[in-house]
Amino acid sequence: MPYKIAIIGASGYTGAELLRIIATHLELEVAALAANSKAGQTMAQVFPHLRHLDLPTLVTWEEIDFSQIDLCFCALPHKTSQEVISRLPGHLKIVDLSADFRLHDPGAYKRWYGNDHAAPEMQKEAVYGLTEFYRAEIAAARLVAGTGCNAATGQFMLRPLIAGGVIGLDDIILDLKCGVSGAGRSLKENLLHAELSEGTHGYAVGGTHRHLGEFDQEFSALAGRDVKIQFTPHLLPINRGILATGYVSGEAQAVHAALAAAYADEPFIEVLPMGETPSTHHVRGSNFCHIGVAGDRIPGRAIVVAALDNLTKGSSGQAVQNANLMLGIAETTGLMFAPCYP
Amino acid sequence: MPYKIAIIGASGYTGAELLRIIATHLELEVAALAANSKAGQTMAQVFPHLRHLDLPTLVTWEEIDFSQIDLCFCALPHKTSQEVISRLPGHLKIVDLSADFRLHDPGAYKRWYGNDHAAPEMQKEAVYGLTEFYRAEIAAARLVAGTGCNAATGQFMLRPLIAGGVIGLDDIILDLKCGVSGAGRSLKENLLHAELSEGTHGYAVGGTHRHLGEFDQEFSALAGRDVKIQFTPHLLPINRGILATGYVSGEAQAVHAALAAAYADEPFIEVLPMGETPSTHHVRGSNFCHIGVAGDRIPGRAIVVAALDNLTKGSSGQAVQNANLMLGIAETTGLMFAPCYP
Amino acid sequence: MPYKIAIIGASGYTGAELLRIIATHLELEVAALAANSKAGQTMAQVFPHLRHLDLPTLVTWEEIDFSQIDLCFCALPHKTSQEVISRLPGHLKIVDLSADFRLHDPGAYKRWYGNDHAAPEMQKEAVYGLTEFYRAEIAAARLVAGTGCNAATGQFMLRPLIAGGVIGLDDIILDLKCGVSGAGRSLKENLLHAELSEGTHGYAVGGTHRHLGEFDQEFSALAGRDVKIQFTPHLLPINRGILATGYVSGEAQAVHAALAAAYADEPFIEVLPMGETPSTHHVRGSNFCHIGVAGDRIPGRAIVVAALDNLTKGSSGQAVQNANLMLGIAETTGLMFAPCYP
Amino acid sequence: MPYKIAIIGASGYTGAELLRIIATHLELEVAALAANSKAGQTMAQVFPHLRHLDLPTLVTWEEIDFSQIDLCFCALPHKTSQEVISRLPGHLKIVDLSADFRLHDPGAYKRWYGNDHAAPEMQKEAVYGLTEFYRAEIAAARLVAGTGCNAATGQFMLRPLIAGGVIGLDDIILDLKCGVSGAGRSLKENLLHAELSEGTHGYAVGGTHRHLGEFDQEFSALAGRDVKIQFTPHLLPINRGILATGYVSGEAQAVHAALAAAYADEPFIEVLPMGETPSTHHVRGSNFCHIGVAGDRIPGRAIVVAALDNLTKGSSGQAVQNANLMLGIAETTGLMFAPCYP
Repeated sequence: MPYKIAIIGASGYTGAELLRIIATHLELEVAALAANSKAGQTMAQVFPHLRHLDLPTLVTWEEIDFSQIDLCFCALPHKTSQEVISRLPGHLKIVDLSADFRLHDPGAYKRWYGNDHAAPEMQKEAVYGLTEFYRAEIAAARLVAGTGCNAATGQFMLRPLIAGGVIGLDDIILDLKCGVSGAGRSLKENLLHAELSEGTHGYAVGGTHRHLGEFDQEFSALAGRDVKIQFTPHLLPINRGILATGYVSGEAQAVHAALAAAYADEPFIEVLPMGETPSTHHVRGSNFCHIGVAGDRIPGRAIVVAALDNLTKGSSGQAVQNANLMLGIAETTGLMFAPCYP
Repeated sequence: MPYKIAIIGASGYTGAELLRIIATHLELEVAALAANSKAGQTMAQVFPHLRHLDLPTLVTWEEIDFSQIDLCFCALPHKTSQEVISRLPGHLKIVDLSADFRLHDPGAYKRWYGNDHAAPEMQKEAVYGLTEFYRAEIAAARLVAGTGCNAATGQFMLRPLIAGGVIGLDDIILDLKCGVSGAGRSLKENLLHAELSEGTHGYAVGGTHRHLGEFDQEFSALAGRDVKIQFTPHLLPINRGILATGYVSGEAQAVHAALAAAYADEPFIEVLPMGETPSTHHVRGSNFCHIGVAGDRIPGRAIVVAALDNLTKGSSGQAVQNANLMLGIAETTGLMFAPCYP
Repeated sequence: MPYKIAIIGASGYTGAELLRIIATHLELEVAALAANSKAGQTMAQVFPHLRHLDLPTLVTWEEIDFSQIDLCFCALPHKTSQEVISRLPGHLKIVDLSADFRLHDPGAYKRWYGNDHAAPEMQKEAVYGLTEFYRAEIAAARLVAGTGCNAATGQFMLRPLIAGGVIGLDDIILDLKCGVSGAGRSLKENLLHAELSEGTHGYAVGGTHRHLGEFDQEFSALAGRDVKIQFTPHLLPINRGILATGYVSGEAQAVHAALAAAYADEPFIEVLPMGETPSTHHVRGSNFCHIGVAGDRIPGRAIVVAALDNLTKGSSGQAVQNANLMLGIAETTGLMFAPCYP
Repeated sequence: MPYKIAIIGASGYTGAELLRIIATHLELEVAALAANSKAGQTMAQVFPHLRHLDLPTLVTWEEIDFSQIDLCFCALPHKTSQEVISRLPGHLKIVDLSADFRLHDPGAYKRWYGNDHAAPEMQKEAVYGLTEFYRAEIAAARLVAGTGCNAATGQFMLRPLIAGGVIGLDDIILDLKCGVSGAGRSLKENLLHAELSEGTHGYAVGGTHRHLGEFDQEFSALAGRDVKIQFTPHLLPINRGILATGYVSGEAQAVHAALAAAYADEPFIEVLPMGETPSTHHVRGSNFCHIGVAGDRIPGRAIVVAALDNLTKGSSGQAVQNANLMLGIAETTGLMFAPCYP
């Protein structure tokens, strides 16, 4: 008997990606789909690529009978998410894909997001959803906070290096290139095809991107001291994919060894042979993350590159991986599909 | 116990797509992979997106022990394919993805491909692999010839209309738009990114595209008379996808009804509501084909549009669907994964 | 002494394209730029690619002193355009890039656009701006109506064939593929990069696209009888470019000869050698239109393909070409820049 | 009377870009075009986008009568270039677009390019073609060596900072993103559309890219000491454009001031207002370079971003700018065309 799940916010890209994954996940069954602005529509109208699936019609989230639901994915915009989640029944397992429960400290939340949190007590309860590093906590959690997609990429690269003490902590630079689906399905001039295709630019340059809140929280906790990295994202004319290039001080061999050891048994994280670096092409549409290391010609400097699909491993795939843990299902269930290349 | 399969020609795009599909197909096991020009390499070297799979190293096809193989996929260039297949053991079930066994008539083969066929007796034995229309023959076949990807798209649209007598047979026009992976991984100047992206052009204009051989063979057999359509393909700056726009004389309602009736029980073919037409976005990376119909403002004229992914439903997905039938596995096994959108 | 021009609606793509062209046009000087929603901003803010130009700050169109202006380009959305133009001073030469003055018949206008025209007397006065066919009228006109970009492409292909009597008039089919900048800079979900890139689909299928109003008006006048063509546009993931594929009954040689004769002396229209067909890549960013012809394998059927850049020859380049005529400047002034390839 | 120029290597992308520029350059006339592998073909066959131009048919370079030529552009692959140039008449002014004469030191040349130089004495004579910094030398030169496109981008950003002493010299990191036309029109699997579009990856990671030879030579000369930067290029699915993100230690205000001062009078280099950073979209198809600066949240760290079009300002536009100087023509002649956006 599959577990019954609901998705709130099913009309956005992360909602669609959850449904794409669950379509071939034998132990999850979609019992309810909510999207308040599109309630009454079928998923075939909202996402014609899901037309072949037998899915419930969209309702408002208030209409869902949660007594029938084992786990609820919440794929709402931030701020809305905390308001909705604070009103959901207390017994319900929840995987939140928004930014609302990633930061444990109310002050940090307010600094990065500009408003007081509507449910600060749940902020503390929530488990940070970076599966490979919080497995036990996630398995026991009621509320799991999906990580930022950029934050996931940077952490997969840097956590073993910080934990292993193989790099300097004061000059870490993360230059990140990301696809446009990370910005969601919102109507903004800068997301139009004519504005984006055939070119690239940086954004949030100078350390203002909100995912820095996650880096600060996680890296500082890991190092036992304040760690502040430089992080500059760039928008690429691709729909899916994040490539993060990390510049660190450290010996490349030690850096590679730390990553290889950390991920030796991980089903979704592949450390490439020394000297090879990854491409977003090779993880596209999958839950895999590829990481590579090269030494620079300058002694003592290493370059680490990580690639993942922001919608899958960076968001909805991670969410299903966490849901599997929370429901006691094998962690890789429904997630071993290969990348879609070319 | 899964069936053991081999792939000859595993270093091209259709070979990679076969492996992507089989990665989550529980009843097929990859026992051997051949690519003579890359023998000795691992699949992770040739296709890093398959790095997470435990796959055999590439060998030459002559090195494969076919006594251990239940079914062999042959994903070689045409001409090479007929030479190799004619030398494979007689007991072996074969799904050929090349053009070599699509045309039953040696004269037609020579006209379209320019050379005498090396195995004309196998040409006659081969079953045309358009699954939805040759199920019983495919299930009983030893050698199945995968269709052209354009030919499949046009036939999904037009066969029920010709068979149903709802359109004129003398003025059918098929304007087709296709993605670049259909041309394979070959080194040709016109397939470079800089030559293709940001624009479009027609090719084989004037009725010279080889897939016309398949249209002629199949439509004429179906109609019991000679049927010759106009067919013009155009190359788009997308990797996957075919959109075929058909211009026919006939009543749009009758056209729609004929398609809806033909595909009512088909798991992979979706006929859209009257007046809606499909997008390649919504079938990308999947084994689904979407077909829509609209009436023109000119009475008695209808427009039919079909969309599929050339690498999946147009090639490797079809091949697996046929292999399932040939091996007595449920036809949809391993093929119900949803499109990858956006 | 250059002529002084104004642009109303300078914050859209056709406005930007006018400025790109005028940047190296020695006989035109930009005296005023209006965009009511962005009045007060500099062009460097609205279009950073024009940052190097010394341009006037944006104002509202009501603020412009038209007594100093020789010619005004109006690049507003339709409906808005007719309201603004009907209030401009009577002496002012105007090139309108909207749809508002293309159709001479108020009834036809209402049928295609849904509303009564606000300035029906100006509708009659306006000259249809297809330069190559209305040169004398344009040179003498006060108000010239820029054509639709699709309408221009189809007419460059079909007018000489209809006028020359070399094709049948009752079965003309125009399958058109166009880039996304034709839809302007408006915030619509279907214009987002994530929705458009990597795929294609038809739209306004079934003879509902408004440019059919232009085809009907022009082709019927030319033939001296009602001519109704079938016309289906498709949206491509490219920013610039229209490729129109025409299917006609007629002898390919006669079709080619009619085109070659019609355009022998035209500076911007290139008829390719018989059997070659064009690519949008080769006209991108330029005022050129390439046209090619191929005979089909079916006797008596020809395929004609035309390519142009919707923003240049299809809109702003045409507008400057017309302005040159209206101001008595050499017609090609400022327009002979080569396409931008690759 | 325009100057007569020849182009050797006219069938590649930089050759095509030279012709695009010269098409509207009133003081240069194309007298001869050579491409040994395509001798006998017309430019309309090799580059149909130049079909409207009245250009000489391609010949072998040995067939050119150089006594009639004022200046020769050499757009050959490296190694070939030095062999050809060493055999050209001694009086001829030459702008070389290859890598062959960029490095003055034969040892450095051999280290980066792997072979002994065929014309070491010309290596010494050649002037490095970064126009804005070597104007007087270029004006007086017989042989000018066009810079690497990545090298140009990095130097426009960093030279004023190194010269001005406003940044540290030992921790400069340049993370660069570049379009595919920089790799030329060569048949390589990794340049196919299907391999490149929809994704990104780094290459030459670890300080192995040959343009580092130029950085080392120029920055060390400028600083009066050894300067070695870290430089990692990434390939983007765009045809034109380089975006370089520089990470430096220094005060952002001082960095911005140094750039603003250096380029205050430069016609092609635009320094954006403090805090804004550029996009390749806004320089595409033009000879402009945009540079922006932002301070990081970490005190004493600044981020500098530069954008240019690799084929124009990074190569053929630079070449024409240098040719203008060498011929005594106003430097901006033929180069003030605006970017092509969108």
